[in-house]
Amino acid sequence: MPVERNLPNESVTPTDRRSVRLKLIVAYDGAGFDGWQSQVTRNAIQDRLETAFAKVAGVKIRVHGAGRTDAGVHALGQCAHVDLPPGNLEPAIWTAALNASLPPQIRVMRCRFVPRTFHARFSARGKMYRYRISTQSVLPPFECGRVWHVTSALNDYALSACASEFVGTHDFSGFAANRGKPVAVTTRTIRAVRVHRTPALTVIDFDGDGFLYKMARLMVGAIVRCGLGKTTVAEVRARLLGTTSKNARLVAPAAGLTLVRVRY
Amino acid sequence: MPVERNLPNESVTPTDRRSVRLKLIVAYDGAGFDGWQSQVTRNAIQDRLETAFAKVAGVKIRVHGAGRTDAGVHALGQCAHVDLPPGNLEPAIWTAALNASLPPQIRVMRCRFVPRTFHARFSARGKMYRYRISTQSVLPPFECGRVWHVTSALNDYALSACASEFVGTHDFSGFAANRGKPVAVTTRTIRAVRVHRTPALTVIDFDGDGFLYKMARLMVGAIVRCGLGKTTVAEVRARLLGTTSKNARLVAPAAGLTLVRVRY
Repeated sequence: MPVERNLPNESVTPTDRRSVRLKLIVAYDGAGFDGWQSQVTRNAIQDRLETAFAKVAGVKIRVHGAGRTDAGVHALGQCAHVDLPPGNLEPAIWTAALNASLPPQIRVMRCRFVPRTFHARFSARGKMYRYRISTQSVLPPFECGRVWHVTSALNDYALSACASEFVGTHDFSGFAANRGKPVAVTTRTIRAVRVHRTPALTVIDFDGDGFLYKMARLMVGAIVRCGLGKTTVAEVRARLLGTTSKNARLVAPAAGLTLVRVRY
Repeated sequence: MPVERNLPNESVTPTDRRSVRLKLIVAYDGAGFDGWQSQVTRNAIQDRLETAFAKVAGVKIRVHGAGRTDAGVHALGQCAHVDLPPGNLEPAIWTAALNASLPPQIRVMRCRFVPRTFHARFSARGKMYRYRISTQSVLPPFECGRVWHVTSALNDYALSACASEFVGTHDFSGFAANRGKPVAVTTRTIRAVRVHRTPALTVIDFDGDGFLYKMARLMVGAIVRCGLGKTTVAEVRARLLGTTSKNARLVAPAAGLTLVRVRY
């Protein structure tokens, strides 16, 4: 687990009369929630956090996340910020008070005051996602809802060869889903894709400056289809170069995906 | 994870007309169930297995477990046996068919035919239990229901010193709860107690020939009370020697306990 640096020159204390900005590191088991972004169901992670803030602060406080995660996707280090009314509690008290109001499947792991120039979404320089695939013949109960269960044999070489295709700066429009309104810029840089395998588990780590809608799960879908021999590295490369969009795509299940960290 | 030896000379095939005995290795997340032993709620692990057997076999089949685990206690390798009507399915088919009828929190990890001399409970030579304690200030969502969350500092030396007191053959009546009827023999042999610590997690492994009711959780309670400085190794020893039963006992929460393996 990466440890977040706590730079002293970034810290501020709520000595003035203006509102202060609080940065939160949030972990959640996504299984029982409707994703990150606020929903009419009020069962999104953002809704649950805003309800907890309202309970503690007595006023409505808007929570700004680094990015949306889909229903069923997990987080170890989702990041968010809020603007608190002046004269408020210390970060350690906020952590304890929020956790007392949140379900145990959502935890504020830590929080701290940040300058008002910090923005959870716009200050983000990158994200790390982890995808977990169980390859055991029977899925152990503890992995239920936390992995993609793939029982057919996955070819090591094909997994790694496909994974390395994504590294670099590409137009990822072939590996993105439509969220309603079109995205202006679909170019993203993937710094690294690492595939770790043990007899029971295959873990794929992505480190990139940004991810389009369902991009991580579409990359995993392509990597696994390569590993199963259902597509070739050449076909994946062609889609990435935009020379074809005909070959089938696969969105890997949400349960296997975890937002590990947001880089600032 | 220990791997069960599959001794060829123990295997039998269902060639005769008599019923055959099937040995099952069962894993479960105990959080949502009423323990191993059959209950009027029909929500015990044994009930769920018997329901699955009845569905697959069309007749009532009694499931015999190696031992009872309490509500909330987990298993990676609980063991059970059943007697199947003659002319039945192969073990791999049983595994798949049972898992198709069971909730994903209960899994038959594997099964095989065994001689009728094998008995899940009476043939057991020992058990291995694991107890997990999270010492992080905030409990990560993924550990919810799977650990005991202890946020006060635990002294390393005291944990290990107390743990080693239990090794050997003792009368464990001071570390057992009453299950209604008295147990004739309360002497048990603990082969090893190992304490592993990382910054986030303390894991205590017990290997013994047998465990009295709530014995593992009472030993953990004593070890943690030692680690917290609430009791002394001398007091634990005195209770073990039967010279005192006055000092307070603590049953560690069920959520932290996992039956790892049954030895035969």
